[in-house]
Amino acid sequence: MKLVEEKIRNEGKILSDTILKVDSFLNHQINPQLMNEIGKEFAKRFENEQVTKIVTIESSGIAPAVMTGLHMNIPIVFARKKKSLTLTDDLLTAEVYSFTKQEISEISISKKYIGENDSILIIDDFLANGQAALALANIVTKANAKVAGIGIVIEKSFQKGADILQKQGYRVESLARIASLSNGEALFKKEQMEELSR
Amino acid sequence: MKLVEEKIRNEGKILSDTILKVDSFLNHQINPQLMNEIGKEFAKRFENEQVTKIVTIESSGIAPAVMTGLHMNIPIVFARKKKSLTLTDDLLTAEVYSFTKQEISEISISKKYIGENDSILIIDDFLANGQAALALANIVTKANAKVAGIGIVIEKSFQKGADILQKQGYRVESLARIASLSNGEALFKKEQMEELSR
Repeated sequence: MKLVEEKIRNEGKILSDTILKVDSFLNHQINPQLMNEIGKEFAKRFENEQVTKIVTIESSGIAPAVMTGLHMNIPIVFARKKKSLTLTDDLLTAEVYSFTKQEISEISISKKYIGENDSILIIDDFLANGQAALALANIVTKANAKVAGIGIVIEKSFQKGADILQKQGYRVESLARIASLSNGEALFKKEQMEELSR
Repeated sequence: MKLVEEKIRNEGKILSDTILKVDSFLNHQINPQLMNEIGKEFAKRFENEQVTKIVTIESSGIAPAVMTGLHMNIPIVFARKKKSLTLTDDLLTAEVYSFTKQEISEISISKKYIGENDSILIIDDFLANGQAALALANIVTKANAKVAGIGIVIEKSFQKGADILQKQGYRVESLARIASLSNGEALFKKEQMEELSR
């Protein structure tokens, strides 16, 4: 998606060969107009999947998920990283391993909000090693619901998440696919392929 | 706002005289159409305040804030409860005391995203004792910016938050104002006043 690539190019800060900071429009400050366009795009890409609900993870997944839900006219549910005081229901849980922090955390969703007839679209802001998306897919599977697909705003294609998810049979749609962050520059996957084919 | 009151009446679970659970449409599962209407309503109520940016707090404030930002055509920023690995900038911080958990936590926003020329609308899902909203106002003040107002989806008017904020001179607009949760029923402020005047 051109709009997301342009935002990354104009506002993204490359902190290392693997870390891209996009806190001016996605992770801390959020651009609602951009989120609205992102929501429209995901709704279009998954319009034939009979999606009944969107699942994401707090906090940065919420804005793109809620805009996608608006355009698909379906509810969203966000997985919590910490147990809530008023979330006293039976929970579906899954473990997420963070390569960056080198720690395992647990995420959870109330059993009430995913049922066996649901066809779930998973939305997240970033895809790197795929651990968060896998944990969400794990929760959906535990509820005997179906994963209709996975929508990602920014995929770091040089890490292995997209491969892992696709090998498990999931359809992954990423709006911006970054092939490399080397030399302080974001190279997008399409561009890299063009360069390779020259 | 009728729509929010109806949602509370139809889907809210009253866990005690002080705790209302609304995780079917606001805190865990989110209803994007409702958030869109909430965003329109806040945009209307604060349209004359020359708001330049919206500030909220993760996670449940994000959905109503981003929809308000969409309708006001301005960015939002959410305060983090935990420090991010890639949030390496200078931070504006404030302490939040939680009466429920009886603990102090720290919230933060990057200095980059609030400037002295900003006129900030604070949005949050709940107003009880006012500690989260006060901490956000504190951060805005530390940035030498102006608080244009405070928009709350659900105010528990029997707790002291709204009073505290109004005594400090802030304009508070709450879409649903709950006068009481006694006897397992949500009584809204307008209704209570009507009853008292009979």
